[in-house]
Amino acid sequence: MIRTIYWENDSVVMIDQKALPLEEIYMTCRNYGEVITAIKDLTIRGAPAIGIAAAMGIALGMLHQSAVSREEFDNYFYRMCDEFAQARPTAVNLFWAIERMKRCFENVVTSDVNNAKRALVEEAIRIVDEDIAINRQMGINGKTLVNSGDNILTHCNAGALATGGYGTALGIVRAAHEEGKDIHVFVDETRPILQGARLTAWEMKKESIPATLITDNMAGFLMKQHKINLVIVGADRIAANGDAANKIGTYSLAILAKEHGVPFYIAAPLSTIDMALQSGDEIPIEERDNAEVLQFHGVRIAPEGVAAYNPAFDVTPHCYITAIITEAGIARPPYEESINLFFKDKFKNENQGETY
Amino acid sequence: MIRTIYWENDSVVMIDQKALPLEEIYMTCRNYGEVITAIKDLTIRGAPAIGIAAAMGIALGMLHQSAVSREEFDNYFYRMCDEFAQARPTAVNLFWAIERMKRCFENVVTSDVNNAKRALVEEAIRIVDEDIAINRQMGINGKTLVNSGDNILTHCNAGALATGGYGTALGIVRAAHEEGKDIHVFVDETRPILQGARLTAWEMKKESIPATLITDNMAGFLMKQHKINLVIVGADRIAANGDAANKIGTYSLAILAKEHGVPFYIAAPLSTIDMALQSGDEIPIEERDNAEVLQFHGVRIAPEGVAAYNPAFDVTPHCYITAIITEAGIARPPYEESINLFFKDKFKNENQGETY
Repeated sequence: MIRTIYWENDSVVMIDQKALPLEEIYMTCRNYGEVITAIKDLTIRGAPAIGIAAAMGIALGMLHQSAVSREEFDNYFYRMCDEFAQARPTAVNLFWAIERMKRCFENVVTSDVNNAKRALVEEAIRIVDEDIAINRQMGINGKTLVNSGDNILTHCNAGALATGGYGTALGIVRAAHEEGKDIHVFVDETRPILQGARLTAWEMKKESIPATLITDNMAGFLMKQHKINLVIVGADRIAANGDAANKIGTYSLAILAKEHGVPFYIAAPLSTIDMALQSGDEIPIEERDNAEVLQFHGVRIAPEGVAAYNPAFDVTPHCYITAIITEAGIARPPYEESINLFFKDKFKNENQGETY
Repeated sequence: MIRTIYWENDSVVMIDQKALPLEEIYMTCRNYGEVITAIKDLTIRGAPAIGIAAAMGIALGMLHQSAVSREEFDNYFYRMCDEFAQARPTAVNLFWAIERMKRCFENVVTSDVNNAKRALVEEAIRIVDEDIAINRQMGINGKTLVNSGDNILTHCNAGALATGGYGTALGIVRAAHEEGKDIHVFVDETRPILQGARLTAWEMKKESIPATLITDNMAGFLMKQHKINLVIVGADRIAANGDAANKIGTYSLAILAKEHGVPFYIAAPLSTIDMALQSGDEIPIEERDNAEVLQFHGVRIAPEGVAAYNPAFDVTPHCYITAIITEAGIARPPYEESINLFFKDKFKNENQGETY
């Protein structure tokens, strides 16, 4: 199994996704600043993985700090949470994880300092363990949509590397493959950062799942040739109405899928759904350094002085989305209702858990 | 003015498009084999430019051969024409240019050998001169579709570098710019060979036409933000019904344009229209070496052992094409009729030219 990020010897260890697929390097972060840098420079990426990294980074920061007063301890924690919240803007899992660490902190801060520190570490480890379990459940739910013989198109990397392990979109691919379904994956290379070519192709190869790499602009031509049966991608933030932000290019893919009558699925945990947002118009879209577009794998491809535009994500309106696959089940339109139901049930179950 | 290919000292000189934009190197071909290699390895590319290269290559081959009999002279010519016809399959301009050189050959072959050789050279030079004039006329016709303030999206390179000079799609951009229209060009980088990033961005910079480079998967998001007023691309072969083969990714762009109500224009000379083909289904689509997808500038981007797919072109059905801009005018649907009219007029004019 691919280990994306884990806690070891009171440090945070993660695979360096910038170095993949040419090298498999594990990097150890010994202070929270290193974790923030790793999130910003894409050493770790993918909405759920970013959330996990933030949780572990916060636990790491608190573990190694030595406040002399409760006030200092509190201030340090909240200031650090703010720093993590600035790391990247689009993936809501980052903010979800920070909120969860805050709730944990508020529950334990009145106890012994060392207990509080350990509780934060345990919470971060619980988040990664839960994430893997959620992905497996998503795989069980989603594989019902995949038939033997299907050609699946995916964009970017919504795999083990984007999560605690197993993956969201690729978790469904894995689950279908594990069940013995004969599937083939077409992998969009996903410019500018090439997460498809570098990460998804690497994951497919590790699992011996048949896969073919294409450039992003080939997807329409493949669909026209009836070579794609379904599209499954991840998400970085989903609004209450089902509009979904995901890696740039997802919106175009969704339109192509609609035009060709190909089902278009989003796979994401409930922690990716931002019920505070009514529609995708409210999702902040990160713009990254233009050098990512002007260069290809470090080699300049355009003349000096040429302008570029580099939005890292786009928003796919819910009307293009056939279904949203979560750990709680498969949501279908109208998403306001189907998604809302998942959260109601979740709330009910959690309350029941507390009562009994 | 950018000189793509020209005849000098009984050799064929062309700018090495593989080296652009990092280096401007002019390469001299002294035998026809070198011209075929240049077509195959994309030293020169773009449908009209490939046609010109073939014409010049054929003239070069005949100029430097020393047949001892008329039969040998003939055989050499036709064998060489066959070799050129094998160089690349999709752009019809290659076959159009070979046919034109054959007609010239058949007219002059009975005269003195040296006269015949010179006539072929003159015909090849005439083809490039005509091509530039045709592009300028296309620019005059097409600029009426461009308004000041427009943001134009283009794919691949249909510029001076794809032709004898001036360009087809970019010829229209140039004509609008020369008229003082305030335009902005969004340039699709155009994976895998990056003709947009390397060649179109270079041409726009040379002309000081405002341009912004994007990755191919950003086009949909730009259209959603109402940042694109029209799309103009070139073509490698157009069927009698208006279906148009062009660089891979064009078909996806056309669907995105339709979904957003953005006009989608093809700019191409009549020599790109293959009246022998009823529909685009009959256009052969070149598949190139997978290494173009798996590598960039010699650096591998996907793990070893990963499969790839590399169709160099796709076909956009006529229903997605708002108009086809040619030197004879702007064709609109139904294309069977509007295109046919251009060829009837052309035939009439040519016959008139012979009569009077």
